[in-house]
Amino acid sequence: MKATATANSNIALVKYWGKRNEELILPYNSSISMTLDKLYTTTTVEFSKKYSKDELTIDAEKISGEELERVEKQLNLIRRAAKVSEKAKIASASNFPKAAGLASSASAFAALTLAATKALDLHLPKKELSIIARQGSGSACRSIYGGFVEWQKGTLENGEDSYARQVAPQNHWPELCMIVNVLTPKQKKIKSRAGMAQTIATSPLYKAWLETVESDLEKVRSGILEKKLSLLGQTAEMNALKMHSTMITTEPHIIYWEPETIVLMKEVMQLREEATECYFTIDGGPQVKVLCLERDAKKIEKRFSEMKEVQKTFLCKAGGDAKLIDRELF
Amino acid sequence: MKATATANSNIALVKYWGKRNEELILPYNSSISMTLDKLYTTTTVEFSKKYSKDELTIDAEKISGEELERVEKQLNLIRRAAKVSEKAKIASASNFPKAAGLASSASAFAALTLAATKALDLHLPKKELSIIARQGSGSACRSIYGGFVEWQKGTLENGEDSYARQVAPQNHWPELCMIVNVLTPKQKKIKSRAGMAQTIATSPLYKAWLETVESDLEKVRSGILEKKLSLLGQTAEMNALKMHSTMITTEPHIIYWEPETIVLMKEVMQLREEATECYFTIDGGPQVKVLCLERDAKKIEKRFSEMKEVQKTFLCKAGGDAKLIDRELF
Repeated sequence: MKATATANSNIALVKYWGKRNEELILPYNSSISMTLDKLYTTTTVEFSKKYSKDELTIDAEKISGEELERVEKQLNLIRRAAKVSEKAKIASASNFPKAAGLASSASAFAALTLAATKALDLHLPKKELSIIARQGSGSACRSIYGGFVEWQKGTLENGEDSYARQVAPQNHWPELCMIVNVLTPKQKKIKSRAGMAQTIATSPLYKAWLETVESDLEKVRSGILEKKLSLLGQTAEMNALKMHSTMITTEPHIIYWEPETIVLMKEVMQLREEATECYFTIDGGPQVKVLCLERDAKKIEKRFSEMKEVQKTFLCKAGGDAKLIDRELF
Repeated sequence: MKATATANSNIALVKYWGKRNEELILPYNSSISMTLDKLYTTTTVEFSKKYSKDELTIDAEKISGEELERVEKQLNLIRRAAKVSEKAKIASASNFPKAAGLASSASAFAALTLAATKALDLHLPKKELSIIARQGSGSACRSIYGGFVEWQKGTLENGEDSYARQVAPQNHWPELCMIVNVLTPKQKKIKSRAGMAQTIATSPLYKAWLETVESDLEKVRSGILEKKLSLLGQTAEMNALKMHSTMITTEPHIIYWEPETIVLMKEVMQLREEATECYFTIDGGPQVKVLCLERDAKKIEKRFSEMKEVQKTFLCKAGGDAKLIDRELF
């Protein structure tokens, strides 16, 4: 009853921002993301009668408190489905800094969900995995799939129609790249969980944000399917700026941007002025991710990696589905 | 036919952003500002038959091109009113960096309007001066008055009801301070004139901005009249963030913030966490201005002046009306 699974991180091109149901993690709007091949989490879950409680390590560090509780809650969902009560030992490791707006909880909860279900010999279709992963961390439902993925918000109160589906597979657009610039490994002060609820309650711009999302979804779907970087990139960049506008006008303000974020945003705009096509997106953190085509990717990556504001870059392409790596049944 | 006038800069607490008439400079929304005692422009205008064309110096530097054209256009309005045709020599000097979001055009066009009308022996009521100043630079209509000033947007097509009036005089709230932090004297890339039209045409948030301004005006008026810093400051800070949200979601994006802007915004939020009450506002530029009460002003100014991001601070209070300094009639 032990399994290891890996899941890639995903970065939204149309952002998820705001829950209509906090408990089930049901969003106000649908979102679309790109699964990234170079950023991933690998998680091993072992259920056994020998454990008296769930034990979690992340990057080899023992974890307690709120983070452990979130994982226990997620395992309870899966234990209930498998009709077992064994506690588990969970070891999770990511190859990128967590809680820095690189969607570490997306890959972590997707890998956890897949590993735990497989360890308990539950073989669920991806749709069901996506629904379970969603309840751990909203954007994790998208990391079940590779390629380009839409999380359909759904309308049901029980959340059974709120799950991810693939817009296009991993090999659909191999020329598209996303350069992830890591500015700083420090933990962000405001977790997005708190932020969303505050934004809905206080931002005078949240309604305007919601009203424009459907149109952004259509444009981003077309941009992906027709492989049009300008349509995809312009829409994604504006979508991110709209989301951050609702954040900064939240009371108290949620300012995820650091000084370096401004420098990098302006660098992307400068690159466009120099006729190098690229677009940025920014999540709940200071990191700036840059969409471009393969022909420009090395040049752009070099430009960023030489900036003093950038600690590390990942040149990503679309990654694959979450997958089982190893399983031992006793 | 020579006169010298001085006018103080003003910083809006409810911002002016967007013109319904570009030619007459008529705004979509009313705005409220504080006139600042420490930032001012002094302008001398001499009309004479000996000049064959208008000649302008700003801070002792000879100016041509677009800036000169704006001043010529403004003088033409005044020459028409006085029924004269003499060209003029104009010398203008400010004690703070121009075009850096410190409202240099507000004090400059208010001082120019007062000096030119006085030089031509036109003695206009403040309301008329405000209407003329507005046509040179929108926010200049507010710098005709000291204290706390509202620019009423008006509804007439000819702009005759779009002028400033005093909400409260200079001596109304002597405890209120505004600390102006100058980050950098460099000229901003995008002038607000171009920015406004782009925002109206492209920002998906502009409508939401406009819808919330009336309520902000009411709160800021009350905050001033009842001397409530928390009401005034919270409203002004959020109003500025809403304006910048419409700017960053403009296509192409108008990002007036520099890295240092982020640092200073967060410093203000940090000061509040330390129970020092203060609020920021930011105009079309990177500078961060901080509202606070006199009891905290020295401490806060010290905190900012010691930051490496800050080049200079001005500890301001409400300033006086634009005024005539000197006049020679021939």
